[in-house]
Amino acid sequence: MDEITRRAWAYLSRVAEPPNRRIAELVSAEGAVAAADRIRRRDVDPALKRATEARHDVDRAEQDLAILDRMGGRLITAEDDEWPFLAFMAFRSVDCDKRPQALSPLVLWVLGPSQLCDTTDRSVAIVGTRAATSYGEYVTADFAAGLVERDVAVVSGGAYGIDGAAHRAALASDGETVAVLASGLDVPYPAGHSALLHRVGRHGLLVSEYPPGTRPTRRQFLTRNRLVAAFGRATVVVEAGVRSGAANTAAWAEALGRQVCAVPGPITSSSSIGCHELIRGGKAQLVTRASEVVEVMGRSGEFAPDRERPAATVDDLDDDELTVFEALPGRGTRTVDEIAVAAGMPATDVLAPLAMLSIRGMAVQEDGCWRLSKR
Amino acid sequence: MDEITRRAWAYLSRVAEPPNRRIAELVSAEGAVAAADRIRRRDVDPALKRATEARHDVDRAEQDLAILDRMGGRLITAEDDEWPFLAFMAFRSVDCDKRPQALSPLVLWVLGPSQLCDTTDRSVAIVGTRAATSYGEYVTADFAAGLVERDVAVVSGGAYGIDGAAHRAALASDGETVAVLASGLDVPYPAGHSALLHRVGRHGLLVSEYPPGTRPTRRQFLTRNRLVAAFGRATVVVEAGVRSGAANTAAWAEALGRQVCAVPGPITSSSSIGCHELIRGGKAQLVTRASEVVEVMGRSGEFAPDRERPAATVDDLDDDELTVFEALPGRGTRTVDEIAVAAGMPATDVLAPLAMLSIRGMAVQEDGCWRLSKR
Repeated sequence: MDEITRRAWAYLSRVAEPPNRRIAELVSAEGAVAAADRIRRRDVDPALKRATEARHDVDRAEQDLAILDRMGGRLITAEDDEWPFLAFMAFRSVDCDKRPQALSPLVLWVLGPSQLCDTTDRSVAIVGTRAATSYGEYVTADFAAGLVERDVAVVSGGAYGIDGAAHRAALASDGETVAVLASGLDVPYPAGHSALLHRVGRHGLLVSEYPPGTRPTRRQFLTRNRLVAAFGRATVVVEAGVRSGAANTAAWAEALGRQVCAVPGPITSSSSIGCHELIRGGKAQLVTRASEVVEVMGRSGEFAPDRERPAATVDDLDDDELTVFEALPGRGTRTVDEIAVAAGMPATDVLAPLAMLSIRGMAVQEDGCWRLSKR
Repeated sequence: MDEITRRAWAYLSRVAEPPNRRIAELVSAEGAVAAADRIRRRDVDPALKRATEARHDVDRAEQDLAILDRMGGRLITAEDDEWPFLAFMAFRSVDCDKRPQALSPLVLWVLGPSQLCDTTDRSVAIVGTRAATSYGEYVTADFAAGLVERDVAVVSGGAYGIDGAAHRAALASDGETVAVLASGLDVPYPAGHSALLHRVGRHGLLVSEYPPGTRPTRRQFLTRNRLVAAFGRATVVVEAGVRSGAANTAAWAEALGRQVCAVPGPITSSSSIGCHELIRGGKAQLVTRASEVVEVMGRSGEFAPDRERPAATVDDLDDDELTVFEALPGRGTRTVDEIAVAAGMPATDVLAPLAMLSIRGMAVQEDGCWRLSKR
């Protein structure tokens, strides 16, 4: 993506409250650069003119991208390989009169080593109340660890309570986790989760529809929830009060045709009321362990229970590369020395093949160890 | 019922393991006295001959009835007004090849002031594991009290754990409760529940298909469970382990077309596993409070949410009787003085009308107070 195009996307990301159907249509018809240009020149239909009235001359694209670059993040759009088309496909089947927010984002601001597309191919959203009980946090950690063990990524919203417990447990089990923020990537929210979100950005993915500097609002939380639901092949509600954000995410998941699961708890606990209501109302399947979530996903037909190694590109490898590729573990990571032992090659001879595998996107280096790419 | 007939029923109750289809058919064709006589004389088909081989000459009818009389109990059959035809009707629709026990009992040995037919018209079975947690016992008490408050009787099996908590809470709330035993009425089981079962027999109903002196067996517990399920318009499982008697009762309730409800609990509690399995398998509706159980019963169409006063016989009352009848409270009891105040009559003048109402079965005296009959 050239810098002019990139700036146009960044401008479009800020010029109206996302998601905006009219901007999406204009971009689709004329491209991002022309769309940005026309919005700047006020050469747009009255509705879009109104939607962009307040911010059309606030062009902070350069600064936003500079902040993103400093953080080591990236701006992705439907033109990128990493764009999660599959996750967003479901928005097309939602009745937009009922749910005007049911649109793909225009751009995503992303930070982290994982590839959004690959990660969300095999992921579950775990959500719940900020007022989690110790029972709820324990159960969340149990589910997150169980999912990670099955090579499933854990998506959540970075909040206190269940969200935080889900991210933490996924990280602790060396699994992939995605935090979808309702603020800019440089505005960790809640502030008390700065360190946790930093770790998510280093080892998993931080994702936001909002440009740097954006502070979260209630509207943004609800808009964000649609992405949490879209990214998870299933959504698990662990604890939820009577009216909760988790119930909103569950409603999004249902609207998107995703499986909704809920964990029961003591009927004497107000933090489980929302879960029991979802189950009673036939809106969620009762689950008691991670394997049941994976089973539910399997039934939905969206998802094969076990991932196969990438076979398509193995044909392109030379002998040494293939040998080293085969020496990478199915799960977890290995040091260069361990790979050398497994490959039956001198350690010095595995480095070049590893570099080639990395360039081909088939192996990933992580903290000095190597693993198969999840692609 | 004359004494000869009564002895015939008592003999038939003991001569084969109940329920026995062939005895039922023989009684239906020839009456109890002739049936008993033919069994004694071995003048029956080979299958029935075999079923009654061991006990045909053990005639303890006189002693059994003497024990029953001393306890103040009664033996009832389909010839009695009290016989719960409605509760037993569902046995006809069960596939008897799959469930050979799906038969009405031939006789029931009953002790207690309530009328079985009326009580089971408006009742819920609460069942669960003997290994109840304090959570389970608390929830049971909460449900039983809530049901009794809605004038619903609580049926259970008299066991330790959930059963006992259900009976106790119903008694404590001055409600009706029915314990269906797998032993004779004079063999309180478990022995530790002697006092509790005695109270159930004084204030509610003790019911058994087995003659006095019968000790419970595993087979009898399972056979008994069909009566618990049949007597409840719905069955609520509060806590149940993986393979439990409660699950057996729930299966009976399902086979009989009764509503099955289950209370969720912590997924970390082994005592809730059975409940979660019932809900997950679509075999039970998740419930969190008594009102939801009543709602479920209402949906089943078997049951009107609120009971009306008996209207059919009001026309038969004279003015004073009608005035006193109207002065009886909708729920609970009143002293004679309170009734006099409510009726606007001297206390001495309400006694005769109360006695007449009692004779007509429209009012009941209880511990010196009066209430509407539940009939």
